[in-house]
Amino acid sequence: MEATVIALDAMGGDHAPAVTVEGAVRAARELGLEIALVGREDEIRRELAKYKISGLKLRIVHASEVVEMAEHPAQAVRQKKDSSIRRAMELVKRGEAGGVFSAGNSGAVMAAALFVLGRIEGVHRPALAAVFPVRNGHTLVADIGANTECEPHNLMQFALMGAAYMERALGVRRPRVGLLSNGEEETKGNALVQATYPLLRQTALNFIGNVEGKDLPMGIADVVVCDGFTGNVVLKLAEGLAEFLLSTLKAELTRDPLSLLGAALALPAFRRARRRLDYAEIGGAPLLGVDGVVLIGHGRSNAWAIRNGLRMTQLAVDGRLVATIREGLRALAGTPAGAQAG
Amino acid sequence: MEATVIALDAMGGDHAPAVTVEGAVRAARELGLEIALVGREDEIRRELAKYKISGLKLRIVHASEVVEMAEHPAQAVRQKKDSSIRRAMELVKRGEAGGVFSAGNSGAVMAAALFVLGRIEGVHRPALAAVFPVRNGHTLVADIGANTECEPHNLMQFALMGAAYMERALGVRRPRVGLLSNGEEETKGNALVQATYPLLRQTALNFIGNVEGKDLPMGIADVVVCDGFTGNVVLKLAEGLAEFLLSTLKAELTRDPLSLLGAALALPAFRRARRRLDYAEIGGAPLLGVDGVVLIGHGRSNAWAIRNGLRMTQLAVDGRLVATIREGLRALAGTPAGAQAG
Repeated sequence: MEATVIALDAMGGDHAPAVTVEGAVRAARELGLEIALVGREDEIRRELAKYKISGLKLRIVHASEVVEMAEHPAQAVRQKKDSSIRRAMELVKRGEAGGVFSAGNSGAVMAAALFVLGRIEGVHRPALAAVFPVRNGHTLVADIGANTECEPHNLMQFALMGAAYMERALGVRRPRVGLLSNGEEETKGNALVQATYPLLRQTALNFIGNVEGKDLPMGIADVVVCDGFTGNVVLKLAEGLAEFLLSTLKAELTRDPLSLLGAALALPAFRRARRRLDYAEIGGAPLLGVDGVVLIGHGRSNAWAIRNGLRMTQLAVDGRLVATIREGLRALAGTPAGAQAG
Repeated sequence: MEATVIALDAMGGDHAPAVTVEGAVRAARELGLEIALVGREDEIRRELAKYKISGLKLRIVHASEVVEMAEHPAQAVRQKKDSSIRRAMELVKRGEAGGVFSAGNSGAVMAAALFVLGRIEGVHRPALAAVFPVRNGHTLVADIGANTECEPHNLMQFALMGAAYMERALGVRRPRVGLLSNGEEETKGNALVQATYPLLRQTALNFIGNVEGKDLPMGIADVVVCDGFTGNVVLKLAEGLAEFLLSTLKAELTRDPLSLLGAALALPAFRRARRRLDYAEIGGAPLLGVDGVVLIGHGRSNAWAIRNGLRMTQLAVDGRLVATIREGLRALAGTPAGAQAG
């Protein structure tokens, strides 16, 4: 496969450009990726100087402006024409890069993607998806907050796009698609879920029916669709709960000397468990439905998370994610479910 | 305070009547509770024979029928006039018991409560609530599944009833009430949340605004309100995730001998952590808004969970939960928020 350049928003994230540059160096060195670091040339150059980078496929694309984490996304993207996130998207638009990874202001990344790349033909609403570590693998949940209110045809497209991502970027064959509900039976669910169920059943997707909250960590489905309000609650609850459970355990383990000794002996196991549960292993949240590969990292991303985000972006590009979604939507449009969804 | 009889649905739950009777014996012995065991007299008597019960305030109220876990709730309750769950509710209705605890078919418990006890005057829709262990205490979430679709005035009543429970049964002063949303700002949320926010702000409740999924385990609020679809997803995700995290940790801890030794040394700490995170410590899900104290236990409840459920039922009765909700609703009806809510 021909190498593709991945555009990295070098200024995006709480610890940019230090961790973004370190992550890019690691991705180039360890994975052989070709990366365009987009942002303030002097700052990036200063960070790059800390590493041995001769022979690595890294180049800088200068952009003088930065959209800060606290800025109003759409407004900032519109006004800051020379921002790193806009310049990164433009590289994809011009065909000079295959995809974008950014750990910056997620609203701004979405706004820049829509503004510069636009939607894939036929997509009603792009979805932001999260990939969770679950038993025996990963599960993608979409939408996790881009669309607070949804219609049944939105959820159907989220399912199609999510399945495309799991198949093309993560190599899952015939991803199992579940509809998040308050019960497994077909009759369960709120009005949105009940209207979406028959649509999903008519698609060519591997639809396994309703799934419940408890099924998510068990890995019952590879793709779980829901409205962005519910998905956002799910995402943040999962983050908060994992932190709470581990901190409760830690508090108890440090309460008596014997437990502390035990915990010290078991430290490698704790580290392995933490790594298996770590979002940073997976590499970011894909923005599905825009006309280009765009992945959004956590603002708190460290260099390891940036490296993995760049890797996932490359995998989605190599897997022809956008073309797969485009073809899937075309095929869907010719079916009864597609016709119903207008 | 005058002792009150608590009615226990002795036939409700996966392991009834063995664990229900054992739980009742423990509650009577350890807490001095007075309990009416409702169900098949011969079966209950056989279980009671396993314990020393002289001096304990336990009596049997015979009911010949049982609503099974898999039965259609409303239909079964209507047809089985001599079912343990109906007979238990009737004890409350006649003033012979202060409240009911059941670990049986939760739909049937709700149906029986509505059918026999009815709603408190002014309650539009009763809510099923769950009490979660969180950092530094507990948080009640309502609704967790009784009402899949909700209106703003439903959520307002859930808030009032949930706060009454946390105050009267768990002794939390001026419970902080949060509205579950996809962001903290007042402008966040789906249509339901955005319409509920101003209503809650007009009440006398200690409303702290929107809370996110991650805030829940952190104990930011004592009461979190949401529609029953979202609440059900939250409840089941929390259960599934806790199980997944602990099983992942366990798998890693048993992968090498040193970790295994460490885990063995730290076993008391693990037990303490598990106990702090255990739903069975808390004692069941209150059904709020029916004209009587009704708590529903997990079908998988063990004797310890039954004992704690009986204890919480007693605390809610002693705390005058129903009267508090009734007075709260009356006071609310005289406010602008109450008037708006019709």
